[in-house]
Amino acid sequence: VVKREVVQLITPGTVMDGKMIDEKENNFIGAVHDFEDGTVALARIDLTTGESVASLLTDDPKDWTRELAGTSVKEVVVCREAPERILEEIKKLGITVSYEDNTGVDQAFHSLCRHVQQDKIIQTYARLTNYLSSTQRRSLDHLQAVEIFNPNNHMQIDVFSKRNLELTETIREKTKKGSLLWLLDKTVTAMGGRLLKRWIEQPLLEKDSIKERHSLVSSWLENFFAREDVRDKLKEVYDLERLCGKVAYGNVNARELVQLKRSLLQVPGIIEIISSLNNEYASKQIESVDMCSPLVDLLEKSLVDEPPISIKEGGMIKDGYHEQLDEYKHASRNGKEWISSLEKKEKERTGIKSLKIGYNKVFGYYIEVTKANIPYLEEGLYERKQTLTNAERFITPELKEKEALILEATENIEQLEYDLFLDIRERVKDYLAPLQQLAKIISEIDVLQGFAVLSEEQNYVMPAFSENRKVVIREGRHPVVEQMIERGEYVANDVTMDKECEMLLITGPNMAGKSTYMRQLALLSIMAQVGCYVPAAKAELPLFDQVFTRIGAADDLAAGQSTFMVEMLETHHALSKATENSLILLDEIGRGTSTYDGMALAQAIIEHIHNNIGAKTLFSTHYHELTALDQNLPRMKNVHVSAMEEDGEVVFLHKVIPGQADRSYGIYVAKLASLPDSVIERAEVILKELEGGQSFVKTRSLE
Amino acid sequence: VVKREVVQLITPGTVMDGKMIDEKENNFIGAVHDFEDGTVALARIDLTTGESVASLLTDDPKDWTRELAGTSVKEVVVCREAPERILEEIKKLGITVSYEDNTGVDQAFHSLCRHVQQDKIIQTYARLTNYLSSTQRRSLDHLQAVEIFNPNNHMQIDVFSKRNLELTETIREKTKKGSLLWLLDKTVTAMGGRLLKRWIEQPLLEKDSIKERHSLVSSWLENFFAREDVRDKLKEVYDLERLCGKVAYGNVNARELVQLKRSLLQVPGIIEIISSLNNEYASKQIESVDMCSPLVDLLEKSLVDEPPISIKEGGMIKDGYHEQLDEYKHASRNGKEWISSLEKKEKERTGIKSLKIGYNKVFGYYIEVTKANIPYLEEGLYERKQTLTNAERFITPELKEKEALILEATENIEQLEYDLFLDIRERVKDYLAPLQQLAKIISEIDVLQGFAVLSEEQNYVMPAFSENRKVVIREGRHPVVEQMIERGEYVANDVTMDKECEMLLITGPNMAGKSTYMRQLALLSIMAQVGCYVPAAKAELPLFDQVFTRIGAADDLAAGQSTFMVEMLETHHALSKATENSLILLDEIGRGTSTYDGMALAQAIIEHIHNNIGAKTLFSTHYHELTALDQNLPRMKNVHVSAMEEDGEVVFLHKVIPGQADRSYGIYVAKLASLPDSVIERAEVILKELEGGQSFVKTRSLE
Repeated sequence: VVKREVVQLITPGTVMDGKMIDEKENNFIGAVHDFEDGTVALARIDLTTGESVASLLTDDPKDWTRELAGTSVKEVVVCREAPERILEEIKKLGITVSYEDNTGVDQAFHSLCRHVQQDKIIQTYARLTNYLSSTQRRSLDHLQAVEIFNPNNHMQIDVFSKRNLELTETIREKTKKGSLLWLLDKTVTAMGGRLLKRWIEQPLLEKDSIKERHSLVSSWLENFFAREDVRDKLKEVYDLERLCGKVAYGNVNARELVQLKRSLLQVPGIIEIISSLNNEYASKQIESVDMCSPLVDLLEKSLVDEPPISIKEGGMIKDGYHEQLDEYKHASRNGKEWISSLEKKEKERTGIKSLKIGYNKVFGYYIEVTKANIPYLEEGLYERKQTLTNAERFITPELKEKEALILEATENIEQLEYDLFLDIRERVKDYLAPLQQLAKIISEIDVLQGFAVLSEEQNYVMPAFSENRKVVIREGRHPVVEQMIERGEYVANDVTMDKECEMLLITGPNMAGKSTYMRQLALLSIMAQVGCYVPAAKAELPLFDQVFTRIGAADDLAAGQSTFMVEMLETHHALSKATENSLILLDEIGRGTSTYDGMALAQAIIEHIHNNIGAKTLFSTHYHELTALDQNLPRMKNVHVSAMEEDGEVVFLHKVIPGQADRSYGIYVAKLASLPDSVIERAEVILKELEGGQSFVKTRSLE
Repeated sequence: VVKREVVQLITPGTVMDGKMIDEKENNFIGAVHDFEDGTVALARIDLTTGESVASLLTDDPKDWTRELAGTSVKEVVVCREAPERILEEIKKLGITVSYEDNTGVDQAFHSLCRHVQQDKIIQTYARLTNYLSSTQRRSLDHLQAVEIFNPNNHMQIDVFSKRNLELTETIREKTKKGSLLWLLDKTVTAMGGRLLKRWIEQPLLEKDSIKERHSLVSSWLENFFAREDVRDKLKEVYDLERLCGKVAYGNVNARELVQLKRSLLQVPGIIEIISSLNNEYASKQIESVDMCSPLVDLLEKSLVDEPPISIKEGGMIKDGYHEQLDEYKHASRNGKEWISSLEKKEKERTGIKSLKIGYNKVFGYYIEVTKANIPYLEEGLYERKQTLTNAERFITPELKEKEALILEATENIEQLEYDLFLDIRERVKDYLAPLQQLAKIISEIDVLQGFAVLSEEQNYVMPAFSENRKVVIREGRHPVVEQMIERGEYVANDVTMDKECEMLLITGPNMAGKSTYMRQLALLSIMAQVGCYVPAAKAELPLFDQVFTRIGAADDLAAGQSTFMVEMLETHHALSKATENSLILLDEIGRGTSTYDGMALAQAIIEHIHNNIGAKTLFSTHYHELTALDQNLPRMKNVHVSAMEEDGEVVFLHKVIPGQADRSYGIYVAKLASLPDSVIERAEVILKELEGGQSFVKTRSLE
């Protein structure tokens, strides 16, 4: 039995490369600990990029799981005594659980959390770094200082709503394609792609920061050629963040260091373009940038332009970089030249035109002569080594002597190049901090130029933020649905809300776009607070602190929760957390229970939000009876999606206009779906009688 | 530029092994062609197992896509002029499309479709085999004669319903775990697993065939020890079907042929156990079985017990199988013995205890002596080959001579073993037909013993089939949900329907199990017609020709279909195809539109099914108003899921009992979800007034 020492454990949160990680997505490992005072500390590190983030949250699972689920955490470290309810929430998210009990800060990581005040965060971060030290057993020099993330400084969107709004993946196929992230992603670098995802998960709340982003989008929009230039240059920039991780880990190869050099060569040009924009915010960003010129020089003079992937087989170091190495290379080249000249000499000497010199792994260099030509060989000079069907292979003492020289030189070259490479790699480590800073700047530039590209392509406008909670959207479009429909076919819609109108009750036929209209407002708000322009002719929005949605259905039969229970749980969450600065979308609440039950609940919920919360709310319903509520609720207005009857056919106009809908056109949809004519006719009769005030319609007699 | 000839195209439908194929699932490639007379022919072949199946269907997409979607088809071959509507349906299923225009039957495949009558099927099958010939360019000897599949001989379940009922994967996670297949799969072999999946996709309609399966389940149940014995033996049986595919393809290796031998060695034991059951059906099956004894003998005497995976490095063939090979082996062994004795001799001669003989790929065999000991070597005898830091390596002429002998013998052995192996492999091809027949019998035995294992574990009973469309289920359970709940907690339910009661209208609170109750009847019927026992104390069922379901919601926003449109499309499908021998499950039809619209449609649909179709129907609804229909529809009965109020708390009893529910408890669910007390109280007030006949409740005045 061979006893092996564990060198390194590779777990879902500590994978460094290969197919398991997505280049446009962070790969975080986290640590979670719930303290007795009702707080939960959360720390996370992306080993591939060195980012470290930590938060102190409440122990409401909605609160801390939102941060876990929203940030691509693949593994969570907890203490061995972690309570079952914490473990269950983690497992529900499909995240691997690992254990570490040591929460003492190791000397090596002291400087990374020196600035942190809260002891609970320090303990939790230490738990995480201790786990990494014991499983990774190698340098973690690329870890960056802990950044404290306070969710209250960001727009909060719970896990349900992120899913419902399809921010980073679609509900049905769970793919990026079709999500908001997919639409907004016009980034050129992998780093930019990762930053964009983070931004979408955490839109800003602070107006000045948002306006800084908008201003840079605006600069890029105005300077088309600068933008095209910077995109071209960004295409040559490699993933600096993950490269830093590999350097620290000691598994970077020569080819990647050459890519690093090529990336750095782009930096001066990029900086120049940015300065030329004369954008105040951007200029501040690049003020103190370190272009790492000495590093570029070192890599330029030491590494060849296209080194091999392996670092153990030589071929990496340039001529002139190291004297001893040059000597070895000279010996090897000489030997090989001698052997190739030998073939010519031997052909002449023997007169055998088909004679050739070859090499194989078993016998080394040999001279091959066809059987027919053997008699022409001088006796005694050639030693027979191998017999083939049609030829014999020979060696001579001088051939073998040169062979030994070549093999020795090759061995020496490989060893020396390897040593030299390790030295270069070690020296790159000194540049980790400036490289990471550079990566940050470049990712941000990349995301914002992408916003400009998209805004130009799709005619987006810069949103304004109102001080008095006004929503004024003119000709707004759902950014993703718009893409799925033929150009010009999409029907844009206005939204107008203010202090006199906090809530819209939306009625109208099915398939006419009620839920698209609702989602549209949420997506525009998120885009605006992420720093992007929005698809509208004009947009003025409040800064929303939270977004709540109850849209669509998600049965979970096996888990024992009926559709209606899910509906009520999500509604409860919205009612208990929303403030007057929040946005609430409720789609057909009450649909999952009996008619009167559902109508009663819907009305009670509308009244509660209207009277006690005051959040901006869009509420769609099939209970047309509820439209009468506008007589008593002053800040609620009815709107409806319009339809037109023409020659007995219904045309959906997808236009949202004031007032209540007169009918739902359910029977019309049934007709579209080709239900038998007799069923349609009968339904129309019943409907007329119901609308006439009859509470039950007797079935027709049987023939 | 190197020009390569294409040797073989590997496509999703022609993968033969590796991680891309699931051992418990078929990997079909299909061909589809729609003819002008409104028919669509479908042919499919599993290259890994050789199965060939073909059907002639209508061009209703529901019809032929059901067969495609239900049978693990990964790729479909069509003609280059195939109409867009056909291509779109195929793409919707996520299946790769390939093209082939030649529909002439190749000589090689003539015998496989000689018995087929319909020319359209022959053409389509030929299209498929022509595609295979041109992409595969190798032997397809394992293809079996085309089996004509007539869907009318089977219970038909459309794609929607298969998904809704979670027959082979769950709706949410798309995993096998949690599906009916997962529950029923107690098979031991991969072949059995594949057959089970096929059976679940295609339950039988013919009573006698079903009873044959039931009788064998019964025999396995009564003979516990025989069953355990047969399971042990089946564990040793390798995947014979896929092995035949590899043999025909010529990519089987020696290790797999040894596995084939081991599998065949189990067959006599298995046959003996089956005979001991004295089951008429099983005895007929094994009557003509060919145990392939000459093949076992051949493999036994030719191949060693643990051959390597490579077939080019020797080490496969037993001593005594081939005289020339034995001689080569003798030479090689002698050489190696000589070399190992040389070490001892050289140590003695030189007196150097640390002297050793080694081998490496560059220099071959060498004698290694530490630098300190070099002076003890006799001059002139040893030729220096390589210098290490602490030692030198030498060769001697006799060492090199023996080395050449060994290398030559090794080369000869490898070549000869390779040739002998190809010969053995060729001889295995003669047994493809009996091996495939054996595979069929074994898979069936495996599936049925698995049914017995499950039925014993879970207390299932043998279902009876009624002649007069009666449904009598006593203490029925939902087979999968039952597994998710703690033992003894599941509330069993009865179902009673007959000529006087074709339709049950189900009302009752949410979360109480209405849709579990509905699915349960469908799953029990499918299990019964697949040949399995069912979870009930007693079960009498009709033979259902089709099952239709409209359960759960599946929004498809991007595709532009609202929930309600999907609802209506599925309902339309049921109304247009169902017969009086079908089973229809409709869950809260009308929920997706406005109150009166939905109620009117629900009533019209109920009346239509009741008066014009007469299929056995379960209809659940939140429109309690509909329960009054039983006064006019003689074959409809009300049932409801009961709940009990105790000290103001509601207890769900999950018991379905006659009569209509008095309320839906929606407000109670809202309370469970912790909605604010004020909202709950207000909803109760509104509800009372609505129930009191008020059509709209004025909102309370604002304080």
